[in-house]
Amino acid sequence: MAGEAVASFQAHQIPPTVAASISSRIHGRRLGLPVRAGHSNIAADPAPRREQRKPEKALNLPSSISSILHLNLDTHLPTNLLSVLHLSGNDHRSPKDDVLSHYLKNTPTASPKENIAAIWREIHGARDWAGLLDPHHSWLRREIVKYGEFAQATYDAFDDDRFSRYCGSCRFGRSRLFSQLGLAHNGYEVTRYLYAMSHVEMPTWVERSLHAETWSKDSNWMGYVAVSSDEETRRIGRRDIVVAWRGTVTATEWSKDLQQRLEPLHDAGGKLHHDHHKDVVKVEHGFRSLYTSKAESTRYNKTSASEQVMEEIRRLVKMYSNRGEEVSLTVTGHSLGGALALLNAHEAAAGGIPGLSHVSVVSFGAPRVGNAAFVGELEELGVKVLRVVNQQDLVPRLPGAFFNEDLGKIFPVESLDWVYSHAGVELEVDTTSSPYLKQSMTDLPAFHSLETYLHLVDGLGSVVGAFRREARRDVALVNKACGLLRDELKIPACWYQPSNKGLVRNAHGRWVVPERDPEDIPSPLRHRAPAPSPSRSPNSQGAVPYLVAA
Amino acid sequence: MAGEAVASFQAHQIPPTVAASISSRIHGRRLGLPVRAGHSNIAADPAPRREQRKPEKALNLPSSISSILHLNLDTHLPTNLLSVLHLSGNDHRSPKDDVLSHYLKNTPTASPKENIAAIWREIHGARDWAGLLDPHHSWLRREIVKYGEFAQATYDAFDDDRFSRYCGSCRFGRSRLFSQLGLAHNGYEVTRYLYAMSHVEMPTWVERSLHAETWSKDSNWMGYVAVSSDEETRRIGRRDIVVAWRGTVTATEWSKDLQQRLEPLHDAGGKLHHDHHKDVVKVEHGFRSLYTSKAESTRYNKTSASEQVMEEIRRLVKMYSNRGEEVSLTVTGHSLGGALALLNAHEAAAGGIPGLSHVSVVSFGAPRVGNAAFVGELEELGVKVLRVVNQQDLVPRLPGAFFNEDLGKIFPVESLDWVYSHAGVELEVDTTSSPYLKQSMTDLPAFHSLETYLHLVDGLGSVVGAFRREARRDVALVNKACGLLRDELKIPACWYQPSNKGLVRNAHGRWVVPERDPEDIPSPLRHRAPAPSPSRSPNSQGAVPYLVAA
Repeated sequence: MAGEAVASFQAHQIPPTVAASISSRIHGRRLGLPVRAGHSNIAADPAPRREQRKPEKALNLPSSISSILHLNLDTHLPTNLLSVLHLSGNDHRSPKDDVLSHYLKNTPTASPKENIAAIWREIHGARDWAGLLDPHHSWLRREIVKYGEFAQATYDAFDDDRFSRYCGSCRFGRSRLFSQLGLAHNGYEVTRYLYAMSHVEMPTWVERSLHAETWSKDSNWMGYVAVSSDEETRRIGRRDIVVAWRGTVTATEWSKDLQQRLEPLHDAGGKLHHDHHKDVVKVEHGFRSLYTSKAESTRYNKTSASEQVMEEIRRLVKMYSNRGEEVSLTVTGHSLGGALALLNAHEAAAGGIPGLSHVSVVSFGAPRVGNAAFVGELEELGVKVLRVVNQQDLVPRLPGAFFNEDLGKIFPVESLDWVYSHAGVELEVDTTSSPYLKQSMTDLPAFHSLETYLHLVDGLGSVVGAFRREARRDVALVNKACGLLRDELKIPACWYQPSNKGLVRNAHGRWVVPERDPEDIPSPLRHRAPAPSPSRSPNSQGAVPYLVAA
Repeated sequence: MAGEAVASFQAHQIPPTVAASISSRIHGRRLGLPVRAGHSNIAADPAPRREQRKPEKALNLPSSISSILHLNLDTHLPTNLLSVLHLSGNDHRSPKDDVLSHYLKNTPTASPKENIAAIWREIHGARDWAGLLDPHHSWLRREIVKYGEFAQATYDAFDDDRFSRYCGSCRFGRSRLFSQLGLAHNGYEVTRYLYAMSHVEMPTWVERSLHAETWSKDSNWMGYVAVSSDEETRRIGRRDIVVAWRGTVTATEWSKDLQQRLEPLHDAGGKLHHDHHKDVVKVEHGFRSLYTSKAESTRYNKTSASEQVMEEIRRLVKMYSNRGEEVSLTVTGHSLGGALALLNAHEAAAGGIPGLSHVSVVSFGAPRVGNAAFVGELEELGVKVLRVVNQQDLVPRLPGAFFNEDLGKIFPVESLDWVYSHAGVELEVDTTSSPYLKQSMTDLPAFHSLETYLHLVDGLGSVVGAFRREARRDVALVNKACGLLRDELKIPACWYQPSNKGLVRNAHGRWVVPERDPEDIPSPLRHRAPAPSPSRSPNSQGAVPYLVAA
């Protein structure tokens, strides 16, 4: 163990003297010291949730890892689904699964929208979400789901088919992304697509086409900028710019590839002065590389993702603040996308953009991004970060599963600039709280899935730990890309896929990959709107051609 | 080895004295005796193909199994695809895969139909296919593909979704099966569906619904009876009744479950007298059980599959022969379906049906069914059997991979009634002959797939061993349920599937398993047509709603 630990320290660039001192303490922790790893409470934690947590039992993972990571893989049985739903299965003419099936098919999927104009700042963390998280405020819950659906869109629209000439791009043109995905009801319009270089030091996050000629050899679609419509702006009390960053579908793979190397965020001539910080602001090398890489020879990354998004934010803020509107920026993302969201929010807040009144982040299952100095700088800049974390998800414990912000509480080390720290306020959800989900506890990718997160957020209610009886979000969505739903629900696993994997029969009767609609073919010239038309209201009855079966 | 062999003999119910004598010979064979196992030539083999075969090299399977089974897993590289297709990849503006892709997209999928009325008897084996197989006669090839597509329909239309209430049934009503699958151009009409008991001694061949209430707890859809239209009847020279039997998708599983137990085909009071046979006619227990089981308590199997199909054959033969027409019966099936086809053809030929002039079987990848006495009885009855066998497919070597019809050539055993024998004439195809297919040689299920068979049959040409340049059948079909096509073809693996695994979004916005169209809901009352309308011509432009992408 001691040898392994020292090797691990080296990989983390930990000074050898500190490593030697920690190594013996680690050994102590494994013998029962009450150390909590993997949880951050940099911002105020408004409710005493930690103390209410059930005792932890390790189950299917090796117990040492499970207990160290506090995965809380309990054995308790789920609450009976029918009783949660106030349904009776006693009618002998109707088998239980028919009652359930009928209920699940015949209720609306969303509660009515509320006007949140009066408290939008609190919902976006102006008071660090005090009093809103536990019990969970229904208006906040609805907004979290909205931003989560924006993040989910980056997966649902991503072309990851290596047989496609457009592998790595968005399957839909900017102007119809939301209508194609059935998200027009959220009341936003996409104004720009964002691209990142695929040749960065994160080998497995990219998707590459098998075709010799593709839309781009160098870039992947990484997300988009959108802005609230006039109607939505009235409901939410300000003009809201959303940036949604794509993560990776195969999160467990890229997490292995993380260089786990903190490097200074700012170049020597960085804009921010932080002489009052003892430590240098550092962020994870791979995330920073993805966010800032560019190359003049490429079609889509002559500018970096950072430059693309900052240019668009500045343009939109200027346009709307010139009209006298209050403008907010909300950055969202899941997994790797949550890490990019943090870098983006940091840069936007540090950019001194006139007229930008509030910057917040809503992330899902995001890993740590930087060190304590980075987190401190985010706080100073007023960036409010709400991190939704599933108790059974491994990714938020990375990088820094063993060496993180908790280290300072127990080790009198002078400098923690080599330690990863989580930012903001954590909103915890728990796979075991949902009676709809299998309690297998071995499906780690499913615990990390964004749709699982959105289901669990929807279940957060007024009673701590109990799944909300009135939760209305379609549970079938959980199984889009995993098989976590209980068999009784009769929803196939991994069902989100086009008919015949996108093949269509042509005039000759042959099955072929169809040509893309010209509107959906990527073009470096079309990824930014000249100016969104403020009078154009998104169609709330938007068709969902891809999602609707033939 | 000796112990294993004896245990294997016991499993095969081989008399112990014979087993002891064979055991030592087996050991000899492993040391290099030139024994050919697994090939049948009961009927005349019209061409000296065996002698032309390449020397065998074992590759990815354990070499002992590979060489014993003669799988011919060669290492030779495939012929260059572009040269096979007479395409030039030298145009520097068009990468090779674009040339290929253009070609594959823009050629018709079938040659024109020929009138085969003059030689239909020869095509159905009247002269045991002498002179038609090698080189391959194009009219015969086209007919084999037609019957193979009838067999393929039993897979394409089968509901194997355990989340479906109709799991184990046909997804389409009888009257629109062919139009839904795009097979209307073949010019046949389905007149009856066939069901078999699911509670027979073959544990894994059945599909069972997870629902408490299903269309049937006791039966699975096993195939159908169809009859040629007036137009097709004129082309093929007689009224043709087709019976297509479904096999199993998971063939490698059921093959393990075969009881490998030969039992007498005829009860004590059986109709056939075979005093001139030394041996009792025996067939594999599991196949016979599936074909003959019934139970008064069921909805779909108050009569057995055997009784259902025989009743329908008698009805159709009587109807058309009363009109003075010549009537043939062609029974087809793949894998397990090929075994049922043999039992069915035997029963029909033995049934003395007035007006039935010719009974033939076209099977694909079918296992052995009975012993030499069974094969002899088929020959006496005039049943003509064409077995299409892929050289790399394991299933036709079962049961009886080690003890089969070849045994009599080398062992002076008195009675072979406990040994499995293949019937009819074998038409061999070879995975390695197709330049379109991966040469991985480890994908045994793909080598057994019926679509692979149909692709290879389509490639049979005038030159032995070479893939036909003019082959036009859509190669994309090979990848319906496997991934055998080479990556250059850009066809995804296992692409045959409905949009979103059949889920649709209902009026509430929820993703649900849709109710079936009433016409497609199974009903014991609707599985037989009162009388096919002879003037009704199948629509050759039949829509294929399920197969066409949204």
